[in-house]
Amino acid sequence: MRLSQYFLPTLKETPSDAQIVSHRLMLRAGMIRQMSAGIYAWLPLGYRVLKKIENIVRAEQDRFGAIEMLMPTIQSADLWRESGRYDAYGPEMLRIKDRHEREMLFGPTNEEMITDIFKREAKSYRELPKILYHIQWKFRDEVRPRFGVMRGREFLMKDAYSFDIDEAGARRSYQKMFAAYLSTFARLGLKAIPVRADTGPIGGDLSHEFHILADTGESQLYVDPKLFEVDMKALGPDDDLAGFMERITSLYAAADELHDPAKAPKELVTRRGIEVGHIFYFGTKYSAPLGAQVVGPDGTPVLIEMGSYGVGVSRLAAGIIEASHDEAGIIWPDEVAPFKVGLINLKSGDAKTDTACNDLYAKLNNAGVETLYDDRDERAGGKFANMDLIGLPWQMIIGPKGVEKGVVELKRRATGERHELSVDDALATIARG
Amino acid sequence: MRLSQYFLPTLKETPSDAQIVSHRLMLRAGMIRQMSAGIYAWLPLGYRVLKKIENIVRAEQDRFGAIEMLMPTIQSADLWRESGRYDAYGPEMLRIKDRHEREMLFGPTNEEMITDIFKREAKSYRELPKILYHIQWKFRDEVRPRFGVMRGREFLMKDAYSFDIDEAGARRSYQKMFAAYLSTFARLGLKAIPVRADTGPIGGDLSHEFHILADTGESQLYVDPKLFEVDMKALGPDDDLAGFMERITSLYAAADELHDPAKAPKELVTRRGIEVGHIFYFGTKYSAPLGAQVVGPDGTPVLIEMGSYGVGVSRLAAGIIEASHDEAGIIWPDEVAPFKVGLINLKSGDAKTDTACNDLYAKLNNAGVETLYDDRDERAGGKFANMDLIGLPWQMIIGPKGVEKGVVELKRRATGERHELSVDDALATIARG
Repeated sequence: MRLSQYFLPTLKETPSDAQIVSHRLMLRAGMIRQMSAGIYAWLPLGYRVLKKIENIVRAEQDRFGAIEMLMPTIQSADLWRESGRYDAYGPEMLRIKDRHEREMLFGPTNEEMITDIFKREAKSYRELPKILYHIQWKFRDEVRPRFGVMRGREFLMKDAYSFDIDEAGARRSYQKMFAAYLSTFARLGLKAIPVRADTGPIGGDLSHEFHILADTGESQLYVDPKLFEVDMKALGPDDDLAGFMERITSLYAAADELHDPAKAPKELVTRRGIEVGHIFYFGTKYSAPLGAQVVGPDGTPVLIEMGSYGVGVSRLAAGIIEASHDEAGIIWPDEVAPFKVGLINLKSGDAKTDTACNDLYAKLNNAGVETLYDDRDERAGGKFANMDLIGLPWQMIIGPKGVEKGVVELKRRATGERHELSVDDALATIARG
Repeated sequence: MRLSQYFLPTLKETPSDAQIVSHRLMLRAGMIRQMSAGIYAWLPLGYRVLKKIENIVRAEQDRFGAIEMLMPTIQSADLWRESGRYDAYGPEMLRIKDRHEREMLFGPTNEEMITDIFKREAKSYRELPKILYHIQWKFRDEVRPRFGVMRGREFLMKDAYSFDIDEAGARRSYQKMFAAYLSTFARLGLKAIPVRADTGPIGGDLSHEFHILADTGESQLYVDPKLFEVDMKALGPDDDLAGFMERITSLYAAADELHDPAKAPKELVTRRGIEVGHIFYFGTKYSAPLGAQVVGPDGTPVLIEMGSYGVGVSRLAAGIIEASHDEAGIIWPDEVAPFKVGLINLKSGDAKTDTACNDLYAKLNNAGVETLYDDRDERAGGKFANMDLIGLPWQMIIGPKGVEKGVVELKRRATGERHELSVDDALATIARG
């Protein structure tokens, strides 16, 4: 993409109303703009990041056997009356009346709806187990939305729901999602810590939150340092997931009020964390009131055992920035970077430099390397600052002197390391990662 | 995907409340389920089709230089007051009050919002031209939603918006989208007819609707048969798009009330059509009231010339079925088929047949061929009917006799042709398309 043709409105000044660094940087890097309180448009650069996160979340759900579908945003109030949550949910639920005065709502979560869908179709225990998920926009009408997309009102969530014939099955589904989540966050370039959690308004008796580490996190975490040594990406769906979860959860990890110093080990690390995932096993909490049952092996009806599993996809975009930035701007992990390379033309308008840049840009495109080419007629200093701000993993810098010498300068954003290399060597370095 | 592990609730009976064939088949094929009037959940099979359509629409937008972003579903009423459409839009707009009694709405379209976003950032004519688009769920509160996702209330739309410094530029943007749309529909396996259209509530002075041909379409089309001979996929963004549009629109094509027999050629074909796209050039209709201007080449402010361009993505899923089905069920064009191959095991439980099927399933997966494997313990007749109903382009049928002879039966859904082939020949046939 040529920057001159892109829509990337970066800001030099720090927006005064943004309190946390990810919010400031997402505004400055031209990723998002606020449309109403807690409601954001994702500009092209931000949208690319959001899609990359979404695709990694999706790939790991699929790998662990969850099946994707899509539920609507608008739900009928009646379903929520059946579960008893219509009144219980309070003013965070955005309630709507349609033109026929029917009571609707913008879904904050989908336990009721998926239970309703599943109960209409599933007849026999043979159709279980099953995990269904979707990635859809949700709405929670926060009293004071703040921190950008970290605590917005309209947000993108991946929510999965498991259906099993008994508690043992439901615990296996829970273990699958537990492993899938740790693998997802690792693939996103994040250290994630699972901590035992309260079940809150979803209900149930087993629940974990997943926090990513960032100095600016809202939660205080108390963690056994051995937890940092576990390889979270190593597992697949056919491995011993019960053993894996047992091994992980036997290591102490707690957030804030659930921390119990009496139970904690001597060697304990405290860190700040941002909650980006939450999983629940809640048994028949929804299947009972909604009458979701299948015929069991002995021919009698059995209520379905369920769990739900949420990842804050849009929040992750902010969370990754909180975990990975410096004074100059964002430092994208390779896996979610909106482009892999930023190509900087130091002297746009100079025929030889333009030709060298155009050649390199074509080579990068042909090699399938996502490249943002700053071809604008701007000062070099401004281009450097802009590229550091938006945080692409690699910068390739070409000016008249380099063209003369037949080299480009390759800079790794994360370390600041710079090397003069031939074009071929620079391309090879990028290809190696 | 193994059918025994999938979530594909097909129906033998025809749902009594579905009036058109696409609605009936989408329900029967387990693609969608109604959640409220005009509001549907997309079950896994339907979701795969929706994603394929979306990806083709996206690829053609990108190819013609439009830039993707994402706007929120919930909009502030204030923006719509500025354009004057808040009152004008009527009861089709779903109006909402949040917990602070602020007036919001679920966006039916995004002219106001994109104009607001663009005007905040664009300063100079040098930043034009630009086409921005997003693919997002919309809501129109139809009085009587009907025909399934063909006329639902919550629907997925691709809407693009163009920004130009003058009318000549705006017409070039319009020509780009005109060509992109014809290419999009051709890639979806559809014959699409552009007809000059009224501008309706969007406004403006130049507008075309795109109709796909289907006997069950709501509109009557009057078309010069020469229009059917044009290759709609041949063009790219750098071709003579003005000439292309001129050539196409010089051929007579009109829908219903805009048909003028006096102007029509002698040789005229009448067909039924379904509207799946609508494009508008509306000049400064929104930029004027919202104050969207840039500094022009002579240093004075100029109002931005705009157009908008919509494709009904979820409606297309139904439209394709209307255009492509038979008595037995859906016939998916290859490009949007949820899976390419349906593998039918005629005797699940028979060790040799299971082994042969598992081998072939592994081969198909390794070759990257999306396959739905019916491994269920069901009668062959039921499996055949089910596979015809969901309409995958190819069926591979394996039973004990074929295993004995070392052959599989390969069936092309569209033609009903069947051939006994070796596994390798069957795979080669599928690979050829």
